[in-house]
Amino acid sequence: MTLDAVLSRIDADLPHATERLLELLRIPSISTDPAYAAHCQTAADWLVADLTSIGIAAEKRPTPGHPMVVGHIDGEGPHLLFYGHYDVQPVDPLALWDRDPFDPQVQDTPKGPVIRARGAADDKGQLMTFVEACRAWKAEHGTLPCKLSFFFEGEEESGSPSLVPFMQENADELRADLALICDTGMFESRVPAIVTMLRGLLGEELTVTAPDMDLHSGVYGGVAMNPIRVLTRVLASLHDDTGRITIPGFYDGVPELPDAIRSQWQGLAFDHATFLGDVGLSQPAGEHDRTPVEMIWSRPTCEVNGIWGGYTGEGFKTVLPSKASAKVSFRLVGDQDPHKIRESFRQMVQDALPPDCTVDFISHGAGQASVTETSNPAFEAARAALSDEWGVPAAYVGCGGSIPIAGHFQDILGVTPMLIGFGKDDDAIHSPNEKYDMESFHKGIRSWARVLAALT
Amino acid sequence: MTLDAVLSRIDADLPHATERLLELLRIPSISTDPAYAAHCQTAADWLVADLTSIGIAAEKRPTPGHPMVVGHIDGEGPHLLFYGHYDVQPVDPLALWDRDPFDPQVQDTPKGPVIRARGAADDKGQLMTFVEACRAWKAEHGTLPCKLSFFFEGEEESGSPSLVPFMQENADELRADLALICDTGMFESRVPAIVTMLRGLLGEELTVTAPDMDLHSGVYGGVAMNPIRVLTRVLASLHDDTGRITIPGFYDGVPELPDAIRSQWQGLAFDHATFLGDVGLSQPAGEHDRTPVEMIWSRPTCEVNGIWGGYTGEGFKTVLPSKASAKVSFRLVGDQDPHKIRESFRQMVQDALPPDCTVDFISHGAGQASVTETSNPAFEAARAALSDEWGVPAAYVGCGGSIPIAGHFQDILGVTPMLIGFGKDDDAIHSPNEKYDMESFHKGIRSWARVLAALT
Repeated sequence: MTLDAVLSRIDADLPHATERLLELLRIPSISTDPAYAAHCQTAADWLVADLTSIGIAAEKRPTPGHPMVVGHIDGEGPHLLFYGHYDVQPVDPLALWDRDPFDPQVQDTPKGPVIRARGAADDKGQLMTFVEACRAWKAEHGTLPCKLSFFFEGEEESGSPSLVPFMQENADELRADLALICDTGMFESRVPAIVTMLRGLLGEELTVTAPDMDLHSGVYGGVAMNPIRVLTRVLASLHDDTGRITIPGFYDGVPELPDAIRSQWQGLAFDHATFLGDVGLSQPAGEHDRTPVEMIWSRPTCEVNGIWGGYTGEGFKTVLPSKASAKVSFRLVGDQDPHKIRESFRQMVQDALPPDCTVDFISHGAGQASVTETSNPAFEAARAALSDEWGVPAAYVGCGGSIPIAGHFQDILGVTPMLIGFGKDDDAIHSPNEKYDMESFHKGIRSWARVLAALT
Repeated sequence: MTLDAVLSRIDADLPHATERLLELLRIPSISTDPAYAAHCQTAADWLVADLTSIGIAAEKRPTPGHPMVVGHIDGEGPHLLFYGHYDVQPVDPLALWDRDPFDPQVQDTPKGPVIRARGAADDKGQLMTFVEACRAWKAEHGTLPCKLSFFFEGEEESGSPSLVPFMQENADELRADLALICDTGMFESRVPAIVTMLRGLLGEELTVTAPDMDLHSGVYGGVAMNPIRVLTRVLASLHDDTGRITIPGFYDGVPELPDAIRSQWQGLAFDHATFLGDVGLSQPAGEHDRTPVEMIWSRPTCEVNGIWGGYTGEGFKTVLPSKASAKVSFRLVGDQDPHKIRESFRQMVQDALPPDCTVDFISHGAGQASVTETSNPAFEAARAALSDEWGVPAAYVGCGGSIPIAGHFQDILGVTPMLIGFGKDDDAIHSPNEKYDMESFHKGIRSWARVLAALT
């Protein structure tokens, strides 16, 4: 049978597939830091060469930022477009890594072998699961089972500034019958999952200025306004005592969970004690009247992702600083309007400033939440394929993360996105010592071969 | 007349005195950063050599930290001890300096020539005013006008950990009739001043830990407690809406200003509009029912001197960090007990922690406030000498900064401290582009010559 032959080839080729992934992981393609721009080019070149080696007509396509990689191969049947991103998060704090984040290694752990490197799970390892499935299929059959397009981005971790214009300019080329996205995880690290509900993301950076120079706190302390005092007051006021976010109008457009979804989620019996216990916590920190699974899948959030001001080195310095800054992100759901929330947040900060203080804002992207309709029969076909591979029924789930590309496929191209991924909760994406389970990689490749067979 | 000859010599020797100061300023003796420990040794060696060149028996004396420099020279009349410190503050943010902070330069400015370097005003330039006065006196007369001791510290900017034990162990050697300290400023940059009221200083560093690793805010945002949220809430609660500090018992031992001092301060007509306007501010930020001069001289404060957590680099990273930290200092007055306030602060933070969060503290020194009695006739004699040099009546003033050495002279040695200094409000001590006015240096040297003449 054709699928079995492909799966056997995948099993036999796993060492080589792993070697290829390690090569890609050695390229430090950090998109948010301009110092790594050349490495982003190198990663794109690597992908073009790899797709070309499978017989896919691929090329690097320039943008005002990091390049896209686009490839096509003809075939019978439906036209599927696969999306992944080759850029990675920064690695700091570097001191917390057990090894060089860009010197990847397969390591044995009590839970089985893992591939350890920045980007192993987010998203190079996941991206390569699909590429390897195609490689095995092509090697076995000389063709692919359908018409396929590949679309790899290099700015996903830095707000995707070039994505929408590129999709608009190349809409005809990118339009397909279905978009496959591999940038999500499994439910509770064990149940294969298709994500149908994604939170949006709004990123803001603010800098409060009080005195126009750093001052000595002995001379000016007590009489000059300290911008850290202003900033901490503003940030502390973003949540009330019940965990609710206080920005005016913030909850406009936040829907209540439909009963059907609520009961499906209750059926999943999400184990929040383990989910939190794995990271040293026990109490959910969100709105008091919401369940933990709602908090991460269907409720909006506000998190301070970074804060800095004054003297932060060793020892002590009695400085009264001129400036204090923070990076704040909001996860959005339903019809929350990121632009309205940005305006309301900025107004709230402005209104909270004492005399003499000013604030500057930097925008770090704004993406709305998205919900996918699963009425397309491809969803049930893919779900069955995933269930076959993993031996447990696959689930439709929500996802706390934000993958704006899903909404863009829908809005710009009119293409339904299907999000399938094999990440696990302890992959430490965006953190030191990121890893991707060898099981995720191996069974991920096999899963895509099954999904390709099921959809064509 | 003997004094006139010394003053003339000081005027003539000013270029050489300046060269000597620049030499000392080239040594980056940052005491708080262990990387600069060798430079602190070098600065101490330089001072030993310089004192020796004047005929003073000086030596470097080891401590568990940076060394002390102690020197003695015999003479007739009273025994005076002079104190200064040779260590300096860190220089960051280095990008805000117009030149290398340890490549000192005499620069012309619209307000006259200044000596630009880290430590120019705090405290190397001030320390050298006294040394140069002694050098000129010795050169002119072959002797000094009285018995003199010199006591230079290298840990003043890092909490003076070795100071008290050293003073206790060497009390007999250091005891004198009067201690002179040059580490303060002029009133409103124009009126020579003897500081008789000094605030104390308590330094604390705290680190809040919530999850035990950095998390992805998409996966955990909303359900996992963010330590920045905890830290900002705690720090924001340290002041109430009237500017009052909320730590339980904080105001125990804070005296009301005696009427005599209050009316003397009113007579000084402190120009807070200019004091604040010079640094881009207009509104005093302290307790609403206090005057600005009270805020900086006689009221206690609480300032966050540094805060950090999460991602603070360029771009954006949706991290939910494991830890967030801050450095907090308190200026103390009257009989406030720094150790009790430390305990109360730590308890308040502990009490404010939500479930699952922990906090670690680092102590950065604790010094009580001090008030000097001016009944010793030496004070009126010194005040007259300063008035003669500057052409305006010198004042007894308070000082917002903390100079714990003043209290130690009183408590450990039973010696009255007299604080005279020539710093100006715009010296930018502890800040980028620190400077010391050439006028402060020149007339400071002349002032000490006059004070020596007046006290002997």
